[in-house]
Amino acid sequence: MEVKALARAVHEAYLAFLDQGTTKVKNEILLAISEGLARGREELMAENRKDLDAGERAGLSKAMLDRLALTEKRIDGMITAMQDVAALPDPVGRIYDMNVRPEGFRVGRMRVPIGVIGIIYEARPNVTVEASGLCIKSGNATVLRGGSSALHSNMALVKIIKAALLECGVDDSLVGYVDTPSRDAVDEMLVQDEHIHLIIPRGGESLIRRVVEKSTIPVLKHYKGVCHTYVNEKADLKMALRLTLNGKVQRPAVCNATETLLVDQAVAAEFCPRALSALQEQGVEIRGCERTRAIYSKDVVAATEDDWTAEYLDLILAVKIVDDIDDAIAHINRYGSAHTETIVTRDIATADKFTRRVDSSSVIVNATTRLSDGGVYGLGAEIGISTDKLHARGPMGLEELTTYKWIVQGDGHIRE
Amino acid sequence: MEVKALARAVHEAYLAFLDQGTTKVKNEILLAISEGLARGREELMAENRKDLDAGERAGLSKAMLDRLALTEKRIDGMITAMQDVAALPDPVGRIYDMNVRPEGFRVGRMRVPIGVIGIIYEARPNVTVEASGLCIKSGNATVLRGGSSALHSNMALVKIIKAALLECGVDDSLVGYVDTPSRDAVDEMLVQDEHIHLIIPRGGESLIRRVVEKSTIPVLKHYKGVCHTYVNEKADLKMALRLTLNGKVQRPAVCNATETLLVDQAVAAEFCPRALSALQEQGVEIRGCERTRAIYSKDVVAATEDDWTAEYLDLILAVKIVDDIDDAIAHINRYGSAHTETIVTRDIATADKFTRRVDSSSVIVNATTRLSDGGVYGLGAEIGISTDKLHARGPMGLEELTTYKWIVQGDGHIRE
Repeated sequence: MEVKALARAVHEAYLAFLDQGTTKVKNEILLAISEGLARGREELMAENRKDLDAGERAGLSKAMLDRLALTEKRIDGMITAMQDVAALPDPVGRIYDMNVRPEGFRVGRMRVPIGVIGIIYEARPNVTVEASGLCIKSGNATVLRGGSSALHSNMALVKIIKAALLECGVDDSLVGYVDTPSRDAVDEMLVQDEHIHLIIPRGGESLIRRVVEKSTIPVLKHYKGVCHTYVNEKADLKMALRLTLNGKVQRPAVCNATETLLVDQAVAAEFCPRALSALQEQGVEIRGCERTRAIYSKDVVAATEDDWTAEYLDLILAVKIVDDIDDAIAHINRYGSAHTETIVTRDIATADKFTRRVDSSSVIVNATTRLSDGGVYGLGAEIGISTDKLHARGPMGLEELTTYKWIVQGDGHIRE
Repeated sequence: MEVKALARAVHEAYLAFLDQGTTKVKNEILLAISEGLARGREELMAENRKDLDAGERAGLSKAMLDRLALTEKRIDGMITAMQDVAALPDPVGRIYDMNVRPEGFRVGRMRVPIGVIGIIYEARPNVTVEASGLCIKSGNATVLRGGSSALHSNMALVKIIKAALLECGVDDSLVGYVDTPSRDAVDEMLVQDEHIHLIIPRGGESLIRRVVEKSTIPVLKHYKGVCHTYVNEKADLKMALRLTLNGKVQRPAVCNATETLLVDQAVAAEFCPRALSALQEQGVEIRGCERTRAIYSKDVVAATEDDWTAEYLDLILAVKIVDDIDDAIAHINRYGSAHTETIVTRDIATADKFTRRVDSSSVIVNATTRLSDGGVYGLGAEIGISTDKLHARGPMGLEELTTYKWIVQGDGHIRE
């Protein structure tokens, strides 16, 4: 189907769903998807096999083939995810901030779905199900566009989702898929601002940059995660070591891993040798500033300006000695990606200053940067992470897939 | 100054203001601006005279010259506005939704400024002061770009704002102005996504459309206001008449005036003749659908498809007879601009259905569309109106000029 016609049909389905999409119906759809996945397991794996074979022939990397694969375990994961989302509270319909104005009418706000959400992602078929499920639970409709190397897998998953919608008496246009292979179809999707209300791109920085440049629709995104751990002069140094190690090595390939360690000059001589050798024992390559190398030089590469903005996603750590908290904050606000930053300190006033002045979406005191995650924060599920300033920051859950409208209840009130 | 360098300087000033911009300092700046305006009255009017003379020579319309003029009354208005904003509560710094997670750390959210806000507007110099004042109170920095025909007036106002900032010990780059006359400067401003975090365009639809197309920075906007009043079959018809008249004639040139009247077919024969003749008595031109004209034809022009999407901003009203509430809702969601819609009805279930299903930023029961306004809603001040779905909808006040960040307080917590 042509992209504009598809977007229009999804928009129509969304408007009908405003009435039809009670919590009960939405949960029934999610459970029907979960059952459909269980029933369709064989067919899913067969369709996925086609994508994997084509990917192997096309020379996709091992990491890409791994992300593309629909294993038994991954299908189980999707089945459970739908059940979990069904069990979450429904964010839609809540009325709040309802006040009576002096003239006697009431004004308040009601949580409502955003509308039609466009999801643009790479060849990870589980996103097809997980993103659709979160959008359905929050009353939104979805236009999906996944990586072309996952097309067979995605179409099989969309078939299951559409069957679940029809089974529950809902227009199956509520979830649409842009299946035209050309990149022009994506560009076309990004200007459907009459019918699509939000774009969430998930993938590498170049994909996201292209989406932002082309889109006339608002985009929620994060380009990258350059997360900092700052060891303040008043830090408990044992805690600082534990948090640094956890931030860097527990799972280095994710966006909330620590990429830069900032050490206060007052404790650098004591902290750096112990910490950097412990990191090296764990296989971490250290890239240090001049002052770091003056204190501890064993196998420490000289850091360049590029290291301060690098998202390594690997066992590499940039290390800089800073003069004081002001210097640390200035470094983070200048070089950081507004994702997640941690301070290690015992001092209340210092922790407070860091919390107020660091301009990132998550600011943490005395805990690992790795905590910044929808599940850990208690959101129940996560559709993505935003390092933007508007609407949603940091991990985005169901609540962040809703917006509000103003509601007014009068009794014949006019404006004089 | 070159646009990129200007944006960078404003961003630097914003980051310093995160620490420095206490409520006390922000209010002192606002009062200093107010005093500066009072002291600078003569110079302001002299500079404004240059713009008015040039505008007259260039053949600007009477309406445009009126908006451009800085009269004594308008200067008084700006002086009072700064005092009023100083008296409003400060939205920044509030911590909320703070919960303890099972592992024992706390996770919550803190209201914080958005960052650097770009305001692009036409030749209305009072916007220079009012937008800057609201941004300062909410802790934001501002890059202003006003219409070129108001350049002398705007530079005189910016001089007063910058003097007030310096007087309070704050970097005067907190409010910057793009004074390069060419349109290229605006395009350049719209891609400074590293330093500008939100664009608010204020002006006609073509200006806003251009901004949305060029911008890589999020934009909050409303293209137009096509507001509906729907007279339900269960309406109190006397109330319906009062609300229709108020919605259309009390101030027809504003975005929350009623542009389309929808009448339930069950009450059309009784309501239309009385209502339409009363509207005509007030000088309103009626453009009716076929069914309307079958009931009341005196001086009723036949409405075309274009009338359903028209923002007249004038004494013209489109009138359509609808089958029932579903038909009314479908018409609004299809042709409306997501601004403000009113239902007149005595029936609770009908009011509730309208409230849930109409997909606009303000949905009103039994009151005029003209109520949708920041002042009337109790926001204290209004920087603009959004018909977008993200971040802020409807009237935007100080709270809507803030965002949140996640704050986490641990005690050495790591991720296992």
